[in-house]
Amino acid sequence: MAYDAPITEIEFCLKEIARIGDLQGLPGLGAYDEDILRPVLEEAAKLARDVLAPLNQTGDSQGARLEDGGVIAADGFKAAYEAFRTGGWMGLAAPEAWGGQGLPRAMALGVLEMFHAANMAFTLCPMLSFGAIEALLAHGTDDQKQMYLPKLVAGDWTGTMNLTEPQAGSDVGALTSKAVPNADGSYAITGQKIYITWGDHDLTDNIIHLVLARIPGAPTGSKGVSLFLVPKVLVNSDGSLGARNAVKCIGLERKIGIHASPTCVMEYAGATGWLIGEANKGLACMFTMMNSARLNVGLEGVGVGEAAYQAAFSYAQDRKQGKADGVSGPAPILHHADVRRTLITMRARVAAARAICYACGVSADLAHASDTPSIRATAKAREDLLTPIAKAWSTDMGVDVASLGVQVHGGMGFMSDTLAAQLYRDARIAPIYEGTNGIQAIDLVGRKLAGNGGASMRAMLTEIDETVRLARSTNDPQFVQLAERLWAASKALAEATDWMLARMKAEEQDKALAGATAYLGLAGDVIGGHFLARAAIAARSKETNFRARQIALAGFFAETSLASAPGRVPGIVESGDRFLDNSRALFGIE
Amino acid sequence: MAYDAPITEIEFCLKEIARIGDLQGLPGLGAYDEDILRPVLEEAAKLARDVLAPLNQTGDSQGARLEDGGVIAADGFKAAYEAFRTGGWMGLAAPEAWGGQGLPRAMALGVLEMFHAANMAFTLCPMLSFGAIEALLAHGTDDQKQMYLPKLVAGDWTGTMNLTEPQAGSDVGALTSKAVPNADGSYAITGQKIYITWGDHDLTDNIIHLVLARIPGAPTGSKGVSLFLVPKVLVNSDGSLGARNAVKCIGLERKIGIHASPTCVMEYAGATGWLIGEANKGLACMFTMMNSARLNVGLEGVGVGEAAYQAAFSYAQDRKQGKADGVSGPAPILHHADVRRTLITMRARVAAARAICYACGVSADLAHASDTPSIRATAKAREDLLTPIAKAWSTDMGVDVASLGVQVHGGMGFMSDTLAAQLYRDARIAPIYEGTNGIQAIDLVGRKLAGNGGASMRAMLTEIDETVRLARSTNDPQFVQLAERLWAASKALAEATDWMLARMKAEEQDKALAGATAYLGLAGDVIGGHFLARAAIAARSKETNFRARQIALAGFFAETSLASAPGRVPGIVESGDRFLDNSRALFGIE
Repeated sequence: MAYDAPITEIEFCLKEIARIGDLQGLPGLGAYDEDILRPVLEEAAKLARDVLAPLNQTGDSQGARLEDGGVIAADGFKAAYEAFRTGGWMGLAAPEAWGGQGLPRAMALGVLEMFHAANMAFTLCPMLSFGAIEALLAHGTDDQKQMYLPKLVAGDWTGTMNLTEPQAGSDVGALTSKAVPNADGSYAITGQKIYITWGDHDLTDNIIHLVLARIPGAPTGSKGVSLFLVPKVLVNSDGSLGARNAVKCIGLERKIGIHASPTCVMEYAGATGWLIGEANKGLACMFTMMNSARLNVGLEGVGVGEAAYQAAFSYAQDRKQGKADGVSGPAPILHHADVRRTLITMRARVAAARAICYACGVSADLAHASDTPSIRATAKAREDLLTPIAKAWSTDMGVDVASLGVQVHGGMGFMSDTLAAQLYRDARIAPIYEGTNGIQAIDLVGRKLAGNGGASMRAMLTEIDETVRLARSTNDPQFVQLAERLWAASKALAEATDWMLARMKAEEQDKALAGATAYLGLAGDVIGGHFLARAAIAARSKETNFRARQIALAGFFAETSLASAPGRVPGIVESGDRFLDNSRALFGIE
Repeated sequence: MAYDAPITEIEFCLKEIARIGDLQGLPGLGAYDEDILRPVLEEAAKLARDVLAPLNQTGDSQGARLEDGGVIAADGFKAAYEAFRTGGWMGLAAPEAWGGQGLPRAMALGVLEMFHAANMAFTLCPMLSFGAIEALLAHGTDDQKQMYLPKLVAGDWTGTMNLTEPQAGSDVGALTSKAVPNADGSYAITGQKIYITWGDHDLTDNIIHLVLARIPGAPTGSKGVSLFLVPKVLVNSDGSLGARNAVKCIGLERKIGIHASPTCVMEYAGATGWLIGEANKGLACMFTMMNSARLNVGLEGVGVGEAAYQAAFSYAQDRKQGKADGVSGPAPILHHADVRRTLITMRARVAAARAICYACGVSADLAHASDTPSIRATAKAREDLLTPIAKAWSTDMGVDVASLGVQVHGGMGFMSDTLAAQLYRDARIAPIYEGTNGIQAIDLVGRKLAGNGGASMRAMLTEIDETVRLARSTNDPQFVQLAERLWAASKALAEATDWMLARMKAEEQDKALAGATAYLGLAGDVIGGHFLARAAIAARSKETNFRARQIALAGFFAETSLASAPGRVPGIVESGDRFLDNSRALFGIE
């Protein structure tokens, strides 16, 4: 069955939950008007359905391959990329000054979700390019921007991120690649990088690598790391392509998923590169784009989850087993209550993750484009808070929902040729890269909470209070019940937040971090439940079926994820003591 | 790293949680003595570590293959099977009268866990043979037993189960394979069967297939299905092998895991078979062995979970990233609190599943071998209750824990050659076959609860009360806290149980079944928490580290899974109303 983007759900989520309307008329987003939203989503949905989705399973079974001249993408990917490029999708949210369309990031996230759902392996290529564009926009010199940005924004060239080395994964500061200054101001980059997504390919005639390396004499650790731009093919001053640079892919990883996305081992053998931003500030440069890269990965969870839901729903309509009331002969398994339970679980969780990601995107847009400093500051804090949750909660959800999708398929779900099985394999990378979900939890507690004394989380709790108030004021029993569950869950989140802040203040960091992953899970559930409740309230004025769906999803999420929230506080605030104290007995370390 | 069986944990669990000592001296288990337990477990651990585990990853990458003459197992599997066979492992729990060792089933489960952990793909071959042995013991004629049992029990031949056809998976009654009577009392079996585990191989010179088919004129549906014994090679009356029977493997499925286990499409082209049990009672014959087959699959979850834990723990000791207090230079990631949190989550859940499975096994032994009718009846009810929980809760756990194992490995966990990645793929089948976990939940609510008006669940709640009482009576604050959490969780389970019984009585079956999976999850958590508490109490007299481990595991499980139990009742008792009422809006059906 084909992936068909849930345009109405995406539009509704952007408008009524994430409140993309707040962006209308902002200076940096001049091209945005609410009327443009639906047509753009519809165009993206066509590309997703007609071009990207049909290549998802063939790309998985064929994979990318490394030949003498470099990496060859799976069949059809080059043409698909050409359709993506000519559609102008690379520059959707890039500044108009560089050839982009200057539309909100949040809107681009709606598009990104569709592309990930249709073909995550393909979509990683543009996704990494977004990161390169952002880094250049923030830290490139004017000359660098002139030379590279128009080509990247147009999609004529793609970009990569080169951080990881075998001994330097989560601990980026441990990297050892060298950058030796040349006489002309460029650098000679030498070293090996691993896990480089779309590090080489034949979709475009040039690739712009952003590479972390050390300049001789730089301080050890993360304070001696600089960022360099290293083109695959050197660019002449007139913009034409010159000589091949001394960088190449020397191996492809064998992975359990995203087979069509070449994961490259890259060798830099004195390759010519140029410093981006200041020397030894490379990690800071990476961090400016880290938030948006993490949010983009969160969308992978949403996309894969939605694709898994659609595949399972379709299978449940077709597959006949057993009997059901009102159905003559063998009944589609959709008629069995347990299957429907599984499907609504999938759907509610996807909807919650979508809301968290889009809301984070609108905050990112406001933080960037609002002309009011206080709004920018508040929005930035909200974006920062939501980012690790969007990344980790959504990608964990993606894995769980893909697994449920396999389950709905029964034995077929375990077969290699089934889309559900592919999604289960593909989904598994997203909780790992762009900062493991454990790192996200540490970021949430260590930086996002402790960094501002909990102010941004308290602002979120106030936002939730408003939803509680609105739901109560309907005087509709279903909404009042929803309000009470959301209220109790938010009190649980507040309690856990206070405990985390107290631990960080008391410098009992280990105890806080022992509960960080469980805390992030709770925060995602409560904030997700808040957004679904907001959706249900907004849907009261919509047509009957749409309204019924929103209240069913919000109600289900409330009676499962929100109702269990208070009981999950002990697992956050007590666990650390218990197993850190017993680490000798459990793990043989103090 | 090599899998090393947790012999001490397994022995402790069998003795102190599952109470295998209750079996000592029972007539059918005359060979069992407590002194024999440890030596047998140690022998099994050697086979698991030295023979089976080294073939796990090579078997995965090579897989089984179909050639002209039949299926060839992966390299080394034939020699490994020979070691398994000569070790007498096939007949460990089989009756001495047929060449077995007459030891308790529960003890064999401890062994089975190790073999699954070391190499699940291999272990499926004997596991299916256990089922064939059991079916013959229960339903075979004396002649059939004489002819086949000694060879099966010795492991000279293996057995298979042939149920599934493309249109008949969970709905076995929909099968269409035919069995036409021959003049000599045998039948000519014709049809195609799919998903036949180890349906063909080169490990032994004969394979005994148990096949469900219809005799012409039989009633439609499940009441017209009969069970047949169909040898791959016909057996002469003197026991020597005769002509090849008209059954062969015509295809192997391409799966995402258990690659070394050939999943066969079997073609029966007028193959000669013999009726097992009565005509048209085939499903009942299958059901007699279903309970034990399901429990054996539960052990797959335990085994894979334990293997995933060991691999993750080992990796966390070796992999160095970042800094930690008390460690100079880069620290093993085991020192990071979040990693330890993940590891204890894995370990506690594996321990709970192990306890549920072994306890179910001891009940199965008592139900079979006790000389007191009332004990047999009580034990049978307990076995019946625990079986669907052992199967579904343990295999869902296996998937979740394998996924956490991948996460601990970071990027390495996504690489095809990493054991963690294999376990993530292998684990995914266990919630599907031998009755999907949704079917288990329906079985729990529809048969095991409603079948005796909740008596067996109430007996389990009484058993839990006793653990609560014992924990409280220690007057140790840690145990008192454990007792309070177990008590509150058991009240939640009681509440959900009463609701389920009321729905079934009111013939609101759909509402009950809508919550069945969530109910099974709750039951597994509460019963698992009860067993871990029992373990912690029993460990009070053990050495310091062992004692500390048991209380840490029980305490962690209590503050996470038990503490959240009361908040999960709404998701069981309310969900059905909400989404069944909204099925038109959500799913397009009434």
